[in-house]
Amino acid sequence: MIAELVSVGTEILLGNIVNTNSAYLSEKCALLGLSVYYQTVVGDNEARMKETVRTALDRSDVVIFTGGLGPTEDDMTKEVVADVMGLSMAEDEHSRKRIETYMKQYEKNDKKRRITSNNYKQALVPEGALVLDNQNGTAPGLIIEKNGKTAILLPGPPNEMKPMFEEEVYPFLRKKQPEIIYSQMIKICGIGESQVAEEIQDLIENQTNPTIAPYAKTGEVHLRITAKGESEKECKKMIKPVVRELKNRFGKNIFATEEDKTLEEAVVDMLKDQGLKLSLVESCTGGAVAARIVNVPGASQVFTHGYVTYSNRAKRRCIGVKKSTLKMEGAVSAKCAKEMAKGGCVVSGTDISLSITGLAGPDGGTKETPVGTVFMGCCYNGKVETREFHFTGNRRKIREQASAHALVMLRECIMEGIYKKD
Amino acid sequence: MIAELVSVGTEILLGNIVNTNSAYLSEKCALLGLSVYYQTVVGDNEARMKETVRTALDRSDVVIFTGGLGPTEDDMTKEVVADVMGLSMAEDEHSRKRIETYMKQYEKNDKKRRITSNNYKQALVPEGALVLDNQNGTAPGLIIEKNGKTAILLPGPPNEMKPMFEEEVYPFLRKKQPEIIYSQMIKICGIGESQVAEEIQDLIENQTNPTIAPYAKTGEVHLRITAKGESEKECKKMIKPVVRELKNRFGKNIFATEEDKTLEEAVVDMLKDQGLKLSLVESCTGGAVAARIVNVPGASQVFTHGYVTYSNRAKRRCIGVKKSTLKMEGAVSAKCAKEMAKGGCVVSGTDISLSITGLAGPDGGTKETPVGTVFMGCCYNGKVETREFHFTGNRRKIREQASAHALVMLRECIMEGIYKKD
Repeated sequence: MIAELVSVGTEILLGNIVNTNSAYLSEKCALLGLSVYYQTVVGDNEARMKETVRTALDRSDVVIFTGGLGPTEDDMTKEVVADVMGLSMAEDEHSRKRIETYMKQYEKNDKKRRITSNNYKQALVPEGALVLDNQNGTAPGLIIEKNGKTAILLPGPPNEMKPMFEEEVYPFLRKKQPEIIYSQMIKICGIGESQVAEEIQDLIENQTNPTIAPYAKTGEVHLRITAKGESEKECKKMIKPVVRELKNRFGKNIFATEEDKTLEEAVVDMLKDQGLKLSLVESCTGGAVAARIVNVPGASQVFTHGYVTYSNRAKRRCIGVKKSTLKMEGAVSAKCAKEMAKGGCVVSGTDISLSITGLAGPDGGTKETPVGTVFMGCCYNGKVETREFHFTGNRRKIREQASAHALVMLRECIMEGIYKKD
Repeated sequence: MIAELVSVGTEILLGNIVNTNSAYLSEKCALLGLSVYYQTVVGDNEARMKETVRTALDRSDVVIFTGGLGPTEDDMTKEVVADVMGLSMAEDEHSRKRIETYMKQYEKNDKKRRITSNNYKQALVPEGALVLDNQNGTAPGLIIEKNGKTAILLPGPPNEMKPMFEEEVYPFLRKKQPEIIYSQMIKICGIGESQVAEEIQDLIENQTNPTIAPYAKTGEVHLRITAKGESEKECKKMIKPVVRELKNRFGKNIFATEEDKTLEEAVVDMLKDQGLKLSLVESCTGGAVAARIVNVPGASQVFTHGYVTYSNRAKRRCIGVKKSTLKMEGAVSAKCAKEMAKGGCVVSGTDISLSITGLAGPDGGTKETPVGTVFMGCCYNGKVETREFHFTGNRRKIREQASAHALVMLRECIMEGIYKKD
C-alpha cells in the first residue's frame, strides 16, 4: 500500500518550524510496511491545497494530513479534503460537546477566555467520517474513506498528533496492511554513537532481513531491529538471534528493550526494585533532571526531595557545602559536587543523592574551567563517587547532555550497588 | 517570484532523518522575499522524480533541489533535471580536477578509499549550467536557467549545502529579487489562541501587505507581522501602525517584540529590572519551571533557590507546610500552595516565591480533585495570591501547561507589584 504525507501550514513554508511530524509519521509508516513515496508541504491557501489534495489522493492509497484543523479562518484542511472527495459537512454533536467541555475548563481558569463561534467550526465533519477524539486539544482528527482511498486528518501540534496517531490511527492502518512488519528496540546508554556503530558494523554490512537501524539520541543510542514476514511469530523468530547477539555485545549498557521505555523510567524502576529513595541536588541543570524523573508516573514512590541550589548561598545554606570549598575550589569542582551529593543524603534523609554542578555558559568560562565543564557526584551507601565531563555546544545543549549523563551515572551507581550486594 | 523546495532522498521518506534543509531554505527564501508555496520530498526513483521535477518547474519560477548529487547509481537529481529541461550532459573539466584533488587527499588518509569511475559521474553537468564549487565535499552544486525557469541543485548534507547556499546561491537570488521582506514579532501570553484570533479577525480579513500570521505555543500566542516593499525603511513604515494597533489591543499581555525572546527571558528581565530575587517551590512540575528559568543566560543574578518538594514529608520539612494542612486539605489545595509560596520566601530569604502543586496523573484523581487540577501560589511583598487551574491531556501535557502558566502568573504578579508601587 502506498502512503503519502501532506503537512499543511504557512509557518512550515516560512521556515518558522521544522517539520518533525513528517519524520515521525514516515518512521511509523515504515514500521507498518506502508511505502511512503512523497511528503508534501503546502500553505494555508485554498487553490494550492486543492491541487495538492487531488494529486495526493490520485497517486496514493492513504494520505495522512497534519495541520490546518484549528479554529481560525486559515485552517481549511477539512473543508478542502471534503470538497475534493465530494462530501458535504455536518456538525458532529459529540465533538461539539467535547469542545464545550474543554473550553469551559479553560474559562474556569481564566475569566478572559470564552468559547467563540470559531471554536464550533472545529465540530463540523465530512459525512461518514470517523471522528478521532483529541485528548490534548480541541481539534478532532478524522478518517475519511471513499472509493478505495483513505484520507487521515490529524492536528498539527506534535503533542496532539502523536497520541492520536498511536491510539487511533496506528491500529486502524495495522488492519489494512496484510504484510507483517515487526520490530524490536534495544536502547543503549553509557557508550557513544560511533563506538556502537563500530561494534555492529559486521552485523549491518550486507543485512537484508532483519535489518538493524541505529538512531542517536542525547546520551543514548537506539537500535531498531526490523523483520518482514508472513506472521508475527515468523518475524519474532528471525529477530531473536540478532537480539541475543546485541545483548552479548552491549550487556549492562542496555537499559531498555521496550519501544516506549525511557532512561528515566529505567532508573525509577531500579530504585523501586531496590526500595531506594532518591534526592537530587542540581545547579547548572536547574531542575531538569528532577523534571525528567517526575515525568515517570509513580515517581513519587522513589523521588522525594529536589534542590536547585543555583546560588552559592543556597549551596551552603540548603545543603551544607563548606564555605572553604566554594572559596578554594569554586562551585564548579569535584569537591563541591561531592559535598552537594553528601549533603543531599543528609538533609533529605534519602538513600541515594545525585548532584550536578557545572558551567553552561555562554559567559563565565576560564582557561581552567571552560564553558561545558560539569561535575557530578553520587552518594550511596555512605560513599561518594564523582565524575568530570566536558560538553560542547550552546547553553541548552550542554544542559541537555548533562541531564542525560546524570541519569546514566545514577543508573550505573545503583547497578554497582546491586552487584556489590550480591 | 515563486520558489519551491524539492528534497530528494529515500532516507527522509523512511523517517531516518528529519528534513532540516527545507526549514533552513524556507527561512532564507522568506528573507529574500521569495514566496515558497510548496516543499516536496521524493525518493530516489526516476519516474517519480521526473513527475516531481516537471510539476515543480511548471508552477514555480525557482526550484531548489537538495540531495541526490552523490556518486552512486541512486543519485540522479542532475540527470533527471537535465532530461526534463531538455539539456544534454558534458564533463566539466574544472569539476573533474577538483574531485581528483579532493579524493587524493582522502586516499592519503585512508588506504581503502580510491577514486572510482562513480566519482567522475559527479563531474558531468548539463550544458550551460553554472557550477558551484563544493568546499566541504565532492558533489558540485549547479544553477541551471532556461525559458525563465531556474533550477538550483545543492548537495543533501547540511554542512555542504548551507555554506554553498550562503556563499553562492544567496547572492545569485538576491540579484534576481528586487523586493525586500521585513517582519516583526509580537509575543502574547495570558490569553488563548482563539480569543487572540477573534480580536484580530478584522485586521486579518482582507489583509494584503503587511500580513499578520498567528502561531500558537503552549501558554503563548505569537503574531508575525510581515511587509514586502522596496526598502527596509519602507517596510518598517508599513509595519509601524500595525504594531501600534496590536499594542493597543493586547497591552500588558505582550511580553516580547523580539524574534528570539522567550517568556522566561521576559520574566528574568523583569526580576533584574526590579532587583528581585526569586525562589521556586515545585511539586507536580518537578523542577520544570526552574529548568526554564535557568535556560536564560544570567539567570543566576535573580534565581537563587529551587525546591522540588515532591513528597509530603519534603513539603513539611523543607518548606514548612503545616501537617494539619496536608491532612485536612491535602497536598493539592490552595492552602498548601499558599504555605509553599510563603515558606519559599521564608526559607530562602528571597523577595518573591512561586509554588506549584497539582495532580499530573495518570493515577490518583478523585471526583473532588481530578487529574489536571493544579494550584499555584505567589508570595510577594508579604502577600500571597493563589490560582486554581484545570488542565487536560496526558501527564506530560499537564506539566507543560502548568509550567507555562506558572511563568505567566509570575509575570503578572511582578507587574501588579510594579503598578502598585507607582
